[in-house]
Amino acid sequence: EELADQGGTALQYPVDYGGAGNPGAAIAAFETTAHGDLSLTVKIGVQFGLFGGAVLNLGTKRHHDRWLRDIATLRLPGCFAMTETGHGSDVQSVGTTATYEHATRELVVRTPDDASRKDYIGNALHGRMAAVFCQLVVDGEGRGVHCVVVPLRDTSGALLPGVGHEDCGEKLGLEGVDNGRLWFDDVRVPVDHLLDRYAQITPDGRYVSAIENPGRRFFTMLGTLVMGRVCVGAAGLSASKNALAIAVRYANRRRQFGPPQGGEESLLLDYRTHQRRLLPLLARTYALHFAQEQLTRMAHASFTADDPPEREQRQLESLAAGLKAAATWHATQTIQECREACGGAGYLAENRFAALKADSDIFTTFEGDNTVLMQLVAKSLLTDYKDQFEELDAVGMVGFVTSQVVETILERSFARQLSQIVVDFIPGTEESADPRERDYQLALLRWREEHITSSAARRLKRWTDEGHDAFAVFQSVQDHVVEAGRAHLDRVLLEHFSAAVARCATPELATVLDRLCDLYAVSTIHEQRGWFLEHGRMTPARAKAFTQAIGRLCFELRPDAERLVDAFGIPDVLLGAPIATAAR
Amino acid sequence: EELADQGGTALQYPVDYGGAGNPGAAIAAFETTAHGDLSLTVKIGVQFGLFGGAVLNLGTKRHHDRWLRDIATLRLPGCFAMTETGHGSDVQSVGTTATYEHATRELVVRTPDDASRKDYIGNALHGRMAAVFCQLVVDGEGRGVHCVVVPLRDTSGALLPGVGHEDCGEKLGLEGVDNGRLWFDDVRVPVDHLLDRYAQITPDGRYVSAIENPGRRFFTMLGTLVMGRVCVGAAGLSASKNALAIAVRYANRRRQFGPPQGGEESLLLDYRTHQRRLLPLLARTYALHFAQEQLTRMAHASFTADDPPEREQRQLESLAAGLKAAATWHATQTIQECREACGGAGYLAENRFAALKADSDIFTTFEGDNTVLMQLVAKSLLTDYKDQFEELDAVGMVGFVTSQVVETILERSFARQLSQIVVDFIPGTEESADPRERDYQLALLRWREEHITSSAARRLKRWTDEGHDAFAVFQSVQDHVVEAGRAHLDRVLLEHFSAAVARCATPELATVLDRLCDLYAVSTIHEQRGWFLEHGRMTPARAKAFTQAIGRLCFELRPDAERLVDAFGIPDVLLGAPIATAAR
Repeated sequence: EELADQGGTALQYPVDYGGAGNPGAAIAAFETTAHGDLSLTVKIGVQFGLFGGAVLNLGTKRHHDRWLRDIATLRLPGCFAMTETGHGSDVQSVGTTATYEHATRELVVRTPDDASRKDYIGNALHGRMAAVFCQLVVDGEGRGVHCVVVPLRDTSGALLPGVGHEDCGEKLGLEGVDNGRLWFDDVRVPVDHLLDRYAQITPDGRYVSAIENPGRRFFTMLGTLVMGRVCVGAAGLSASKNALAIAVRYANRRRQFGPPQGGEESLLLDYRTHQRRLLPLLARTYALHFAQEQLTRMAHASFTADDPPEREQRQLESLAAGLKAAATWHATQTIQECREACGGAGYLAENRFAALKADSDIFTTFEGDNTVLMQLVAKSLLTDYKDQFEELDAVGMVGFVTSQVVETILERSFARQLSQIVVDFIPGTEESADPRERDYQLALLRWREEHITSSAARRLKRWTDEGHDAFAVFQSVQDHVVEAGRAHLDRVLLEHFSAAVARCATPELATVLDRLCDLYAVSTIHEQRGWFLEHGRMTPARAKAFTQAIGRLCFELRPDAERLVDAFGIPDVLLGAPIATAAR
Repeated sequence: EELADQGGTALQYPVDYGGAGNPGAAIAAFETTAHGDLSLTVKIGVQFGLFGGAVLNLGTKRHHDRWLRDIATLRLPGCFAMTETGHGSDVQSVGTTATYEHATRELVVRTPDDASRKDYIGNALHGRMAAVFCQLVVDGEGRGVHCVVVPLRDTSGALLPGVGHEDCGEKLGLEGVDNGRLWFDDVRVPVDHLLDRYAQITPDGRYVSAIENPGRRFFTMLGTLVMGRVCVGAAGLSASKNALAIAVRYANRRRQFGPPQGGEESLLLDYRTHQRRLLPLLARTYALHFAQEQLTRMAHASFTADDPPEREQRQLESLAAGLKAAATWHATQTIQECREACGGAGYLAENRFAALKADSDIFTTFEGDNTVLMQLVAKSLLTDYKDQFEELDAVGMVGFVTSQVVETILERSFARQLSQIVVDFIPGTEESADPRERDYQLALLRWREEHITSSAARRLKRWTDEGHDAFAVFQSVQDHVVEAGRAHLDRVLLEHFSAAVARCATPELATVLDRLCDLYAVSTIHEQRGWFLEHGRMTPARAKAFTQAIGRLCFELRPDAERLVDAFGIPDVLLGAPIATAAR
């Protein structure tokens, strides 16, 4: 309530409704809040982002006039009731119905069974209204998923007739968020509670929509909710930054073991294993940071444009899905590694990892399960691939796939291994294999992405041609497709990091960032070296060069490590970890 | 107290002191308790295992007679005060001192500074006595770390004079364990409170020990505490089993998404990505299970033998260290993956992951930080290596390193790649590359271990020969050495799993276990395929065959998945997760 009073929680709303008309600022505010407390952050996200966002983006002026200002000030607390007990990722199959009744011009909202209860809903205890996603039925015909605003409680907090509520009970984390279940026993709302930006019920009771295809309508509606994913990715990134700031600063203070004949004990950060644990994660955090910056710019542009081009919208959705998954998986991994790197001290609640770990854990699941999101990313890649494929002849195609025709030819022929061995042993051409050459790194990650994507496309096409049904076909290449999504993200991150280095105007800083970017690229390629070797794109000698480069880069970056986490600019009070803020 | 009354918590003690003289049963009891509640399990471990274990194994009959029966019944609750704020892994450098005073024949126990406070000590609130590890000083001479029993509180629970206590505050998990800090301001205890099995102070006040070398004395004393590591590994394994039982059973009930044209939705466990997430972890859990069984047998034999051979003792210590690290890292990874695989339902406390995750997190740190333990394993490997090296001539050496002379020669020569390509493309020899052939799997993992160990040995020797000091040398190959430890464990696990399959007398069961063993081997080798390719031990075609084999094995094992977790025999009440126990 205090934050809402200060106006900092609804910056994305139009000025007329108490906002600042600035979606980019809203994302930045969310990212910043996440350095502090994640329960508070998620509560803000539910109220102003999801609930208010549904009213803003799926509703029309009438809805905005009626509710948005009260949402912005928190006078009207609400829920975003999409997920059901039986349907999480598969939103299209939710069971809740809203049936239009001609006589009364009302929508009758019903939960047909336990599996159709709205579940895990944030603000379920405090919410006075809910944006409920349900199957709209008009004249006995199912029109697919739409969003209806349903009052839950009166101003005293008492549940309204027909509304059921139950708390989700204790959770792994985010105990500051009141997650609960909601169900509706023929709850009636006036038809104007349908958020009708994309589909309307006319005064004479007909269902109309400018988007004829039901699937496209559904995805258009869902697309407007992309902001949730952008914000969760940002919050995951903030959590990673906190964890790394604590672990790196601790490692630069804590000493353990030393030369047997006395002398000062070594700082943890001077141990190779410790550098290898923390610094590649730091590098990837920076990579995610620069990509997230770009995503924020894209989201801001999209939500301030009158009519954003569909292609840009699709790119935004794909990047938001991919970065959400990448940033939150990274957060889980990073927080865990940092906790372990702080030993017993990391297990004490006062040093913050308890909260970071518990509260961020669900990030990999909510606002889209990460594995499902990676498949969305891959679907978008495959669509792009198909589009470009159709524009190219066979020769251009080869260029598209690899950008390096000669390598492609090598890869396809038995001769490649012989040739690469030759390359490997002829001094002078070895220079092209320097793991720290940016163009080489980019070429490797691009080639990997294209190769995995195109081979997934070929498998999909072949099996479809053979007459298998689409669901079975996609299921059969599912892991391949998820791999394509991951490969895509690895490449995108490097491009954004690389661009940030190029933009950097301070030479001294550029040198450090360049090194960190190398560490991101080299450790990512190293992790995938099995794949590169398997596909004849790398010789054993080159692969070993990558292994050695990681150690060297860690060593070179070690003196700058603490400055690199200080640069996140997290105030000590938000870091909230005594082990990180002790004097050196 | 109830468990102690039933006599199930001190089975490892001699019968005369209320135990069963059965260390193996004690480990099994610990492992079983860990299926239930980990706080309770850790409390049991601290009281009966660590505190009682110190008295039993570091003390002599006098101490046993005086304290052991009361420890077994919990009439004398106590602490194991080893770790200090400033010294965790480096026990040899603890700061607490116990100074012998001739006049009074007392030991004066002192905490010289804040860094020397005993920290993270379990039972610190409830303990009436502590086994305190401290630097023994006799006649002004430091004699290294010894263990002294120090009373903390009177029977009313009030702290005794000179003893300080502070609670560690909230923790990430294990909130049922009272971890705290203890410090001593010149606390005096009679000299017979020194646990003097390995070193004594004579009636005339001289320090004597049958083990002359102080380092060896220290490690001998620590070695008797190996049971703690055996038990923590076992508990980590139990936590992994709980997590997998919940996630696999849920995945065999929960449906999501289905063919667009209706029809039943798919079970999560029928998705390839889901199989790939859970089944390799299940396979490694079985591998760990069989290795842990063997470790339990070894520990039982050692603690029931009068004078176990030193070599066997060293093997026990090495396997205990390695399995503790492997099993607890595995637990952290498995519990996380299982939580995510259960989506939102996995985040609810009622479904158990909250407790499993929080309570097992510290397992990677306590009873030896895993990264440090892996270095212990490697040190033991390097010692073995040196021993065998000295017995062999140069030709035998080659055989030892690879067991396959021809491969070694290939690996060392430029020609290897050419030859392997030829092998790869000649039908008939390809059969030797079947990823599911056990001997081939074993050969690969053995070869990897030997190669990494021998190259680490060469690096250590070269740098030592060049005159660098030992600490710097070991630090410089630290990551290499940790890798050797991991490679060792991978191989050891396969051998134990493979032996268990061979022992299995029921053909139907043997078939399933054999498949699961294949999955363990194939996914482990697949994970390391970068290394195998890099070292010329695998062709790209073989590496791809491993990738494909994982998918196929998951598919083949899928029908048995639920039976494989049911076989852990965890009663539903201990599983404690409604999502896992619903009817199918």
